[in-house]
Amino acid sequence: MMKNENSTVDRLIERILAMKNPSVVGIDPDYSKIPACYHGIGGSDGDTLAAVAAEIEFFGKDIIDAVCDIVPAIKPQMAFYEKYGWAGVRAFERTVAYAKERGLVVIEDAKRGDIGNTAYAYAQGHLSDVEVSGGMRVRGYDVDFLTVSPYLGSESLAPMVDAAVTHGKGIFILVKTSNRSAGEVQDARTARGETVSEMIADYVANEAERAVGAYGYSGIGAVVGATYPQEMRTFRQRMPRSFFLVPGYGAQGGAAADAVGCFCADGLGAVVNSSRGLLYSHMSEQERAACTREEYRARVRAATIHMRDALLDALRKEYGKTLLYG
Amino acid sequence: MMKNENSTVDRLIERILAMKNPSVVGIDPDYSKIPACYHGIGGSDGDTLAAVAAEIEFFGKDIIDAVCDIVPAIKPQMAFYEKYGWAGVRAFERTVAYAKERGLVVIEDAKRGDIGNTAYAYAQGHLSDVEVSGGMRVRGYDVDFLTVSPYLGSESLAPMVDAAVTHGKGIFILVKTSNRSAGEVQDARTARGETVSEMIADYVANEAERAVGAYGYSGIGAVVGATYPQEMRTFRQRMPRSFFLVPGYGAQGGAAADAVGCFCADGLGAVVNSSRGLLYSHMSEQERAACTREEYRARVRAATIHMRDALLDALRKEYGKTLLYG
Repeated sequence: MMKNENSTVDRLIERILAMKNPSVVGIDPDYSKIPACYHGIGGSDGDTLAAVAAEIEFFGKDIIDAVCDIVPAIKPQMAFYEKYGWAGVRAFERTVAYAKERGLVVIEDAKRGDIGNTAYAYAQGHLSDVEVSGGMRVRGYDVDFLTVSPYLGSESLAPMVDAAVTHGKGIFILVKTSNRSAGEVQDARTARGETVSEMIADYVANEAERAVGAYGYSGIGAVVGATYPQEMRTFRQRMPRSFFLVPGYGAQGGAAADAVGCFCADGLGAVVNSSRGLLYSHMSEQERAACTREEYRARVRAATIHMRDALLDALRKEYGKTLLYG
Repeated sequence: MMKNENSTVDRLIERILAMKNPSVVGIDPDYSKIPACYHGIGGSDGDTLAAVAAEIEFFGKDIIDAVCDIVPAIKPQMAFYEKYGWAGVRAFERTVAYAKERGLVVIEDAKRGDIGNTAYAYAQGHLSDVEVSGGMRVRGYDVDFLTVSPYLGSESLAPMVDAAVTHGKGIFILVKTSNRSAGEVQDARTARGETVSEMIADYVANEAERAVGAYGYSGIGAVVGATYPQEMRTFRQRMPRSFFLVPGYGAQGGAAADAVGCFCADGLGAVVNSSRGLLYSHMSEQERAACTREEYRARVRAATIHMRDALLDALRKEYGKTLLYG
C-alpha cells in the first residue's frame, strides 16, 4: 500500500467532513432547460455558439455560488459543454477554474476511454499536464477527478490510473452504471465466471492500493449506480478502499435510503450525485421561464440542502454513532 | 429497410471507388513525435497551449494536403486535440473544416458514450446541430462519422444512432477493438451465451437497416480490429450491411492480408485506418528532427501510397474480379 500525500481524495474527504455532506451537484447546462434569465446574457458577437457558451458559463458559475459552502464537490458534465464547440470547452475550463477558486472539488464527468497512447493523451490533458514548446509543461483542464469508461480493458485504464497516482488526482471507473440498459454489457460473465462489473471492480480494488490517502481511502474509485441497492453493498465490500461516485439519485429513480449502501460505516467512501434533480426538476417550466438569477440560485440552494438533509437522515438511521459527521 | 439518400456512407463509398483505396489516414498529433519543423510555427502570444494548438493545426492541414487526393477519409483522434484545452478543440474544428473543403470524409475518433440526455448532447454536438438563442440551430463539429463506446448499453447508443439516421451521418460503434486487453470486457458472455462483442454486433446489424444508402451499405457501422482476422470474418457475416472501421493496421501489428476479411467481395464495407504507421514510424527520430514541411508531406504521401498498394494487392488476391475497383 502506497501513501499518497496531498491527494484530492483527502481534500474531498475534508470537505465532506466540513460540510457534513457527501452529496455532489452535477452541472448539466442543458440549454432547453436552463432558466430564461440566462438567455442572452452572454451578449452576442454574431457567433451564436460562443454566445450560448457564455450563457452556460454564467449558469454554471451561479450554481457554484449557490452551493459552494454546502457541498464538497461539483460534477460538470463535459458533453453539455463540448457540444458548443471550442467556446463551450472554454466555458468548461473557466467554470472549473471558478469552482476551484471557491474551494470546490471538481469531478469531470466525461467517461473517456481509449487505448495506449491515446488514453495517455486524455490522462495528460484532463488530469495532469501537457508538453509544450521548449520542453515546458502546462496544466490542462486540471480537474480533481475524471470518470473513465473500461470497454477496452485494463490496458486502456492503466494510463488513467498512472496519471491519477502520479499527480495525486482521482478517477472514477465505470463499474455498474445507473441506467436501464446498464446490465447488457456490465452483467455479462467472463471465462472465470464473474460479471464484467465484478472484474472491473477487482481491477479498481487492486489499483486503489497504489494511492491510499491519509484517511485510508483511495482516489482510484468507481461509478456504482444507486438503482441497484443490494448489488451496491456487494461492490462496497469488493472495493473497500475506493471512493464511489453514485449517480442516479433523484432523476433516475434512486433515493436516499437506496444510496446508503455505497457508504462505509463512517459515512465516507462515497459521494452521491444529482444533476437534473437539483438544477431543473424542482421547478416547473413556467417557473424557469419567469425566475430571476437570484431566485434561481436560492431554489437550487434549497434543493441541494433538501438532498443533503435526506441523505444525512438516511445515513444516521443506517450507521448511527459510527458516522464521522452529522 | 429504410433508404437514406445523400448519406455520408454513400459519399465515403464514392470516394473509395474514385481513389481505388479503402484506407484512412489517422491524424494523431502527438507533440512528442511531430517533426521539429512544426515547433514554433504557430507563433506564441504567451499562451503556450494556444501556440501548440496552432502548431498541430498546421500539422493536420499538411497531412490533409499530402493525402487528400489519394485517400477517401481522415480519422482525427480527438484526444490529441482536446488535451490542449479549448484552443486544441478549435484546432480540431478548423482541421475538420479544412478536410471537408478538400473533399475528404471525416471520421472523428472520440469513443463517446453516456446515457440518455447526455448521449443526446454528444450526438447533437458532434453529428448534428445544437440549439442556440431564439430557437435557432447551429452546426456543431459536423463530422461525417463518430466512434461510439457501448459500455452503458443500447440505451446509450440509441441517441447516437437516431442522430446519424436523421442527419444522414454515420457512427462506428466499438464492437471488437484491436488492443491486447480488448477481450477482457468484449469476450465476456451474456445470459444468452453470446459474447458482448456479438451482442453489440447484433445491435449494430439491426440498427443498420434503418439507414441503408444507395450502395446497400449502412452508416450505422462497427469498429472491428484487424488483429483478430478469423473473428473479423464472422463479424463481417453478422453485420452484412454495416461499414467497418478497422484500426490496428501497421503500428498495432495487423497487416494487409489480415485486414481483407473485414471487406465484402466487392471491396467495400470497410475502411482500414493507420495513424502512427503513416505519420511517424516510417521516419527515424533524426529524420523527424531535420526534415522540412515539404519533405515531411512527401514522406507521409509515400507511406500512404505504400499502404494503399499493399491493401489493394491483398484485396485483388482475395476477391479478384468481384472487386469493384482496382
